[in-house]
This record gives sequence, C-alpha cells and structure tokens, in this order.
Amino acid sequence: MPSPGEQGKLYLVGTGPGDLSLLTERARMALEESTYILGNGVYLDFLDPLIAGKQVIRSSMGKEVERAEQSIKLAGIHVVSLVSGGDAGVYGMASIVLEVIERQGIDVRLEIIPGITAAQAAASRLGSPLSGDFVVISLSDLLTPWEKIEQRLGHAFSMGVPVALYNPRSRGRPDNLQKALEIAGKHLADTVPVGVVRNAYREEEEVLVTTLGGMRENLDRIDMHSTVIIGGEETRIWRRGSDVRGIITPRGYHRKYTY
Amino acid sequence: MPSPGEQGKLYLVGTGPGDLSLLTERARMALEESTYILGNGVYLDFLDPLIAGKQVIRSSMGKEVERAEQSIKLAGIHVVSLVSGGDAGVYGMASIVLEVIERQGIDVRLEIIPGITAAQAAASRLGSPLSGDFVVISLSDLLTPWEKIEQRLGHAFSMGVPVALYNPRSRGRPDNLQKALEIAGKHLADTVPVGVVRNAYREEEEVLVTTLGGMRENLDRIDMHSTVIIGGEETRIWRRGSDVRGIITPRGYHRKYTY
Repeated sequence: MPSPGEQGKLYLVGTGPGDLSLLTERARMALEESTYILGNGVYLDFLDPLIAGKQVIRSSMGKEVERAEQSIKLAGIHVVSLVSGGDAGVYGMASIVLEVIERQGIDVRLEIIPGITAAQAAASRLGSPLSGDFVVISLSDLLTPWEKIEQRLGHAFSMGVPVALYNPRSRGRPDNLQKALEIAGKHLADTVPVGVVRNAYREEEEVLVTTLGGMRENLDRIDMHSTVIIGGEETRIWRRGSDVRGIITPRGYHRKYTY
Repeated sequence: MPSPGEQGKLYLVGTGPGDLSLLTERARMALEESTYILGNGVYLDFLDPLIAGKQVIRSSMGKEVERAEQSIKLAGIHVVSLVSGGDAGVYGMASIVLEVIERQGIDVRLEIIPGITAAQAAASRLGSPLSGDFVVISLSDLLTPWEKIEQRLGHAFSMGVPVALYNPRSRGRPDNLQKALEIAGKHLADTVPVGVVRNAYREEEEVLVTTLGGMRENLDRIDMHSTVIIGGEETRIWRRGSDVRGIITPRGYHRKYTY
C-alpha cells in the first residue's frame, strides 16, 4: 500500500472562461490524471466531456473553505484536481488552499495550473482594450471591505490605464458598479470607451462597446456573468467607416513609427 | 479562384510562457489551420513541433509594425497565424494589428486568441501572490515615456495590491527596476514579499522569493526574461516550518471564516 503523501497530488486547475477550446493542454492532462475532481458546480458542468467516470464532488459558491479542506485531505493519497473558472491564481482557489495548508502545517504535492482569466477573455472579444499596462479589480465586497475597493478604484483610474472590473454587479449590492463609474468619472472623460462582455466564450455571449457616459443607460444589461473594461486615457473606439468594431488601447508605436 | 478576403483569416495567437503544455487547444487549432505562421523568432522556436511544414516567417524584436502589415496583407487570401508570446492582447501583437487595419481602412477576418501571460505564469510558480486585485506594469520605456511609467507606479503601489512588473530590466536602461523599487519603498514596507520568476516554464527556470528590502542585493539576477511580482499590503511569505515555500496574498477568507 502506498504511504500517505507519496501517491497523492493536488492540481489547482484554472479552466478558463468556459469553452473547452480555451483550456490548456496541462489542465487537460491534470484532469485526466485525477481520480477526484472538485469544484463549483457551474465550472464542472462545462468540463463534463472530460471528467466522465471520475469521482466528481460538486460544491457551491460560498463553500470555498470546505472545498479547500476536502481537496487537501483527499490529495494525501489520491490525485485530485480542484478546478477554478478562469485562472486558479486570480480570484480562484489557489490562495485559500495555500492558506489552509500553511495553517494545518501539512505537506501535500501541489501544482497550480494557470488559465485564461475573465479580463483576457473579455479583451479578446473586444479587440485590444488592455494591450499594455492594466489593472484588475473586483467590485465584490464579500471578502474585501467596500471602502478599500473605493480607494483602489481611485488610484487605478488615476493611472490612466485600462481597468478590468470583475463581479461588476453582485446580487447583494447592485449599486457597486454605479459607484465605481462615478469614481471613474472623476478621473476620466465621459468619452472614454467602455467594453462589456457577458458570457464570454459561452452560450449567449454578448459584447457591448460604449463609453463611460453611455454606461449610465446600460447598467441593467450587466450582471455577475459580465466583465467590464474601462479604457485608459489613450483608449479609443475601433471603427471601420462608421461601424464600431471594438476597442483599441494603442501601445505607443505611433510615437515611434509611421504606418 | 477564391476572391480576396473570402478565404483569408488572421489569427492573433497568444502562445503562453513557452511550454507547449500551456498553449490552449484553440491556439493549437489556429496554428494547424494556418498556411503562414509569423512571429518573433524566439516564440517560433518553441512552436517548432507544431508548425513543421508551414510557411514560417521569422521576424525580430522592433519589427512589430512590418510584421503586422505583412500578416494583414497575407491574410487577405491565406489563413495566417501571427503569434505573440504570452497573451496576444497583453504587450502582444493585437493592438498594432488593429491599428494598422484601422488606418488602412481594410477588412480582414480576424480572431484574437488569448494566452497565459507572464504575470500568471510567474504567479503559478510562486504560490498565490496575485489572488485578487492586481496591477500589471511594464518597465520598458521603448513605447511609453519613463515619466508616465513612474506616475503609474506611484498610483499602483498606493493601491496596496500586488504589482506585476514586466520587462523589469531592459538592456537600454538597466536602472529602471531600481527606480521602480524606490517608488515601491515610499508606499510599502521593506518586509513586503517580492517574487521573481526567470524563464517561467522554460529551461533553466529560476524562482526567487525575497522582500522589497532583499531585492537590493538581487538586482543582478534579474533580466528581460524575468517577471517580478511585488506584494501588496496583505501579501506574506508562505512557509512550512522554517522553509520558504512561496508567496500568498490572502483573499480575505480569514475575515469571514475560521480554518
């Protein structure tokens, strides 16, 4: 019999936005190698074709600590994949797993597999709104006090670079997005482009290109499945003739080259 | 004969940090479908096993505008993949391609395929240093004036969230990193954890976990193949007993739960 800790391994797998084609090969191999697959039910659903026949343990939002503890325990003797939508290291399960491992003083073989996070998925559908320097901020105040989020937003919009907003409208506090837009308005012009992608790379994907001013009449279209990208000082709407094609944040080649 | 524009397509492919296992399936399929593959020689080298027999056009750093123009032209009648290391939409080729398309007023079928960017690759090797809100800033002043970079750094470190530094030491200006660390020091304690990953997921990968104070004696170990992650106000070194295992930025579960 294998001694505990010798055969087990815990993969923290980022599964990307929710389309199997955006999974990395490494994530696929980890799932294949695993006996147990744990995750939020939402993220497990789209993995169905890859995890048939596995021991699948479905959890739900708000149960992250229990899920981390259960995964670590199982990984003592089994190969386990704990999946996170997007990137396991960005609003994913990596931090809570490491915290639990540290506090319990146990050892576990561990590999963190990064995945495409929502900002990247949304950006790729909008054109090139991020391009260079950018900021990622979640408007969920479940784990971070709202006052702190407001301070961060103020500094972020002062940078003049694009800001990707995660969890723009949580059920508990539907007004967080409006407050964030007001803070943006103190630092950026009403004409600054804003892109919204809802259900990126999933069924019923929707892409909206508007401006900071235009967001006021689009607030109702945004929910917890949306990612909002607010442009920086150089961001502009990308057009072909009078058609809006997306959003571009130039990287600065125009300062050096003619094209 | 196909009429121009009907058969052609341009894929902007993010190829991740440089290990084929971190390529997405979608990126693989785009490469497979393409007749022409264009990119910086460095990124094409590791794709060798996937692009054998293709028309491969190698370019070099600094030739981004020409590479964009050539790709767009070829994509009028051929299926073309223009590859970027990391994510095509983050310090990659997406923005310059869209700018050229816009200025030339031409139409081209286009798909942008996101990839794992350096901040994510580095983070996954360090533990969970990003975890939630974070900032990405490049210290290269080739396309962005240094004064602007300094302003952004000041605001970024004021946010108290982790900051990932790309191009931490460019050949042209080796002192940019030292200046950035001085700005960090105005806002963050000397004990704040700093992680450096050199050649993430490539041969001779090196991982360094230190602090803002400790970076002073490690400057020489950092080059253009390194990504530096400077922790935020809550970031801490992740230990097992007296061993340093990595870096954790807690997401805030400790404010709500016991574990």
